[in-house]
Amino acid sequence: MSRFKVTFHPYNKTVEVEKDATILSAAVSAGVPINSVCGGDGVCGRCKVVLKKGSVLMQATGLLSPEEKKRGVYLACLSEVQSDIEVEVPRGSTADFEKISTQELKKTFSDIEDIEPVKPAIRERLFTKMPLTVKLYLSLQPPDLNDKVSDLDRLCGRIKKAENFSALQLGIVNIRNLSELLRSSGWKVTVTLSRRDQTTEITQIEPQDTSLKNFGMCFDIGTTTLTGQLVDLNKSEILGTKTAYNKQATFGSDVITRIIYAREPDGLEKLHCAVTEEMNRMIQELIAEHNVDLNDLTCVLCAGNTTMTHLLLRIDPTYIRKEPYVPTANFIPPIRATEAGIKINPRGLLYCVPGVASYVGGDVTSGVLSCGMNDQAASLNVLIDIGTNGEIVLGHKDYLISCAASAGPAFEGSGVSCGMRATKGAIQKVKISSRDFEPSYETIGGAKPRGICGSGYIDLIAEMLRSGIIDKDGKIKPLEHKRIRQSDMGREFVVVFKDNADSSSDIAINDADIDNLKRAKAAIYSALSCLLKHMGLDFDSVPKIFIAGGFGTSVDINNAINIGLLPDVKRNKIIFVGNSSIAGARAMLLSYEAMEQAEEIARKMTYLDLSTEPAYMDEYMAALFFPHTDLAKFPSVKL
Amino acid sequence: MSRFKVTFHPYNKTVEVEKDATILSAAVSAGVPINSVCGGDGVCGRCKVVLKKGSVLMQATGLLSPEEKKRGVYLACLSEVQSDIEVEVPRGSTADFEKISTQELKKTFSDIEDIEPVKPAIRERLFTKMPLTVKLYLSLQPPDLNDKVSDLDRLCGRIKKAENFSALQLGIVNIRNLSELLRSSGWKVTVTLSRRDQTTEITQIEPQDTSLKNFGMCFDIGTTTLTGQLVDLNKSEILGTKTAYNKQATFGSDVITRIIYAREPDGLEKLHCAVTEEMNRMIQELIAEHNVDLNDLTCVLCAGNTTMTHLLLRIDPTYIRKEPYVPTANFIPPIRATEAGIKINPRGLLYCVPGVASYVGGDVTSGVLSCGMNDQAASLNVLIDIGTNGEIVLGHKDYLISCAASAGPAFEGSGVSCGMRATKGAIQKVKISSRDFEPSYETIGGAKPRGICGSGYIDLIAEMLRSGIIDKDGKIKPLEHKRIRQSDMGREFVVVFKDNADSSSDIAINDADIDNLKRAKAAIYSALSCLLKHMGLDFDSVPKIFIAGGFGTSVDINNAINIGLLPDVKRNKIIFVGNSSIAGARAMLLSYEAMEQAEEIARKMTYLDLSTEPAYMDEYMAALFFPHTDLAKFPSVKL
Repeated sequence: MSRFKVTFHPYNKTVEVEKDATILSAAVSAGVPINSVCGGDGVCGRCKVVLKKGSVLMQATGLLSPEEKKRGVYLACLSEVQSDIEVEVPRGSTADFEKISTQELKKTFSDIEDIEPVKPAIRERLFTKMPLTVKLYLSLQPPDLNDKVSDLDRLCGRIKKAENFSALQLGIVNIRNLSELLRSSGWKVTVTLSRRDQTTEITQIEPQDTSLKNFGMCFDIGTTTLTGQLVDLNKSEILGTKTAYNKQATFGSDVITRIIYAREPDGLEKLHCAVTEEMNRMIQELIAEHNVDLNDLTCVLCAGNTTMTHLLLRIDPTYIRKEPYVPTANFIPPIRATEAGIKINPRGLLYCVPGVASYVGGDVTSGVLSCGMNDQAASLNVLIDIGTNGEIVLGHKDYLISCAASAGPAFEGSGVSCGMRATKGAIQKVKISSRDFEPSYETIGGAKPRGICGSGYIDLIAEMLRSGIIDKDGKIKPLEHKRIRQSDMGREFVVVFKDNADSSSDIAINDADIDNLKRAKAAIYSALSCLLKHMGLDFDSVPKIFIAGGFGTSVDINNAINIGLLPDVKRNKIIFVGNSSIAGARAMLLSYEAMEQAEEIARKMTYLDLSTEPAYMDEYMAALFFPHTDLAKFPSVKL
Repeated sequence: MSRFKVTFHPYNKTVEVEKDATILSAAVSAGVPINSVCGGDGVCGRCKVVLKKGSVLMQATGLLSPEEKKRGVYLACLSEVQSDIEVEVPRGSTADFEKISTQELKKTFSDIEDIEPVKPAIRERLFTKMPLTVKLYLSLQPPDLNDKVSDLDRLCGRIKKAENFSALQLGIVNIRNLSELLRSSGWKVTVTLSRRDQTTEITQIEPQDTSLKNFGMCFDIGTTTLTGQLVDLNKSEILGTKTAYNKQATFGSDVITRIIYAREPDGLEKLHCAVTEEMNRMIQELIAEHNVDLNDLTCVLCAGNTTMTHLLLRIDPTYIRKEPYVPTANFIPPIRATEAGIKINPRGLLYCVPGVASYVGGDVTSGVLSCGMNDQAASLNVLIDIGTNGEIVLGHKDYLISCAASAGPAFEGSGVSCGMRATKGAIQKVKISSRDFEPSYETIGGAKPRGICGSGYIDLIAEMLRSGIIDKDGKIKPLEHKRIRQSDMGREFVVVFKDNADSSSDIAINDADIDNLKRAKAAIYSALSCLLKHMGLDFDSVPKIFIAGGFGTSVDINNAINIGLLPDVKRNKIIFVGNSSIAGARAMLLSYEAMEQAEEIARKMTYLDLSTEPAYMDEYMAALFFPHTDLAKFPSVKL
């Protein structure tokens, strides 16, 4: 079979592929980060490239305008290589990760990252049982001629007496030197006990009293964003939080692309390492900052969507995306952290929050727990987790039903030209003067603006809409204004010129960005609408709507409704809970009662597959306006 | 500190030691096998060496005769090196192992070894529960859009439905490729399930139906002898048995010496490897002979005394021999066999039969089980396990009491000049003509005689006693006869001249051998006597005495009583059960109900430390005659 060279500009990378390979697969081989939300199905229209030389064969698509076709724009996923070719990857088609230089990553990484909001919802709840891992200091009675119980039975007997641990397990490693350890320490030792379903494992035996040093890590592993938290398990205290982009994004911006990539040679391994290396780096930084010894980090708990959990554990994720969309596992037994490449105490365990289905994972279970939706007293509520894979849960103690809406990472500041995570320097609030279109804004930490985070985008679109800069379709009007100009992604509106920004270029929003954000908000709104309809309910039936996600701490509720992201309900029904996944994960780390409840939540929750709901596509299409095609659904919105 | 050279003849080995080091410790460093039953405490008098050059300082001892002192004989354990020295290790001081050349070992190893007697005692018992490891073939319903249970839940749900397995565990290794495995096998798989205390582990998942191939190994790990058995777990059938000497004997003939040796640099590791290498070799040979794939060998179960179990698992055994004599563990949780260096299926488990105390181990528990002493219907019985470390158990379903008597390995054919295990070519029966002292004998397998096994020695001593060749003290009389001559171990009596033997030298018994056998039988008789007295009982109170041990299948009860090894009771009370340890181990392998009973036995059994019984030493001294000092105890014995 003939082989051809494909060269990508501006990366200056060349790769050889077989005839009829797609440009997208060539880009994956070359390590060129082309955006592809739909995973190469020709649906999202994000993987646009410009053919500079050579010939390709492209399947018919309605996602390119006649103007684009004239310019030589092709969808990388639908175009098959027919000769040596050269293509240009425009800025808007680049997977967001590429934008963040190593230096920049380091900067955001070491920032004070206070976006983790411990909302009342979780604070009010009291879990009485102990952490997943506890340290117990024991002073044992030495044996004598009248008491010749073996060392191990002596130790286990004492543990059972101290606390109600039923079935104790331990590995041979901890037995081998037990006799010497007990005697050299004068029979005073500290045991580390970790829950393992119905049993308890003695993971470590240390001389003397080390019980004050017992720490855990919890992680929210998002498709786009990683959040890690170091917790003092004795004091139930958060010592520090880190967030970072999930480096798996280099292999695809969404779960589908990554599942496909996992089938490449070493693909699964690379995806696995991309996330674990970042997690290990977070751990290293946190323990260094807080003077914690790695050995005293005795357990780690991860909440992630189902694909993230599979990739973390190097479990083949292939069948998540193939009908009938069944994951290998929703409930993962505790394993030794080192088996997943996570470096904590070498005998420490790794727990994964159980998930529900292929597209509703442990992060959602965790969110439901942290919002107390399963509480006896709770009424029928809704949780919307706005992430790359948006998830919605409806229910109360008796039932819970969930669905997923592939929103994309726009509200996490990814896949949009000037987007960033909600960290220092992110524009989080925007006002635009209707008179002269001059924007005023507020950044996180009051720093010079570096980009725009989710809450900033919500404000920005709402304000552009209100002030008439964009129409209800989201297109920037062809107005004569110094801030409005043509770009290669349609028109753009400059929010901050680079002279006033901590950025090498102007901070702007363009037609493509707005389109991304519109699709994201439409996916979420229509999913919620469908889920309620499916259950014979409407927005008024729900007393509380919890909004979770990493888009910032100060979302303007009115603006979120004005752009049609959230339904037009009484404002006090809407409660922003921040990262509910990490909050729930932390609760589980600190009490296995919370873990037990999470397991119950995951077992109880059902999953509604929207792709089989006939109404969903209509709802989605109708929501592709600001705020909506049917303005009767948004009576309080006056634009 | 000054350092001196110590040279050992005839080994021609030289080692450098510090001043005041004992000759015994120098021998251990040099790898010279000096016999030391007491472990260097100056008690057994076995480690005699002849000083040829240089000077040593020896503690006072009554164990050397004036004649020996004159000849330059020293006890290696009591003699401290004061200059460069040269010593001769006489044949009688050599640890037995050295006598067996590699070639010879190989020969005995590949013999048909049929000594494992499955006695009625165990055959009559019926255990209804399943083997420790079972294979279950499952044909699963594939998922569809109406049944989207995860692969793992589908599998586990099906297992729980098929059999009553409550808490299933499995490692991440078996989860990683589960999805592909299920689909590529058309949803037909075989799971291997292994008991782990109160839970069950899925140790393996294979495509298609492999359930017919499920095998286990059980081992009796004796101080002197190893016995291994390959069992078809489906058919409850023994496929083959191997026995071999425990190669740890190179480091010491008894548990005490080995515990001391374990403190040497790499000592524990060497002891561990000595036994596991032999076990692996047995496994390899058995599976090759019976066409079993190593992967289908799914579990291994070991019964051994407490020290053997510690060494097998590389657990520090130090405190077994230090007051108050407490082992690290009597109950060992199941571990992966590979963690102990045993090569079976890489995920297969290793089980150890629980022990009772430092000197009553899992082999005794196993013996009690196999004799059915814990049965509801059983009356008050006694089990005597005649091994290097002799153990005695008295009791029934309501109580069990045990004690240990350090008998030495003489009845296992070790530590005696022409001893051998009860395998092909061993003299197992002997008659001596009172008229002309001509012996007639019978060998195992009818082969040319190669040595004498335990039952042969019992006959031989009884016959020598009856025919007047030895006196009641066990000394060979200075008779003029072609078979009686002087040797460097006192007088000796030739049983078979080498021309008629499969041996490079005459097969004989000497004064030192008889002394060894006398001490062994005295230790056992007096221990039994003490144990009964302690409980306010006598020999007549006991309806059955089970005799276990590797001394052969055809012990002559009258002769065993005539030499005072067994008490003078009604002959039908005495039942030889062979290797009761391997029989019990096999029962456990084949049914976890047996394992549960063994655990109950071990928990229930108490231990009487004879060294704290004031009467024991007197009893022992009185038993150092054939049959006994007090002939009133042996009314039926006419000599």
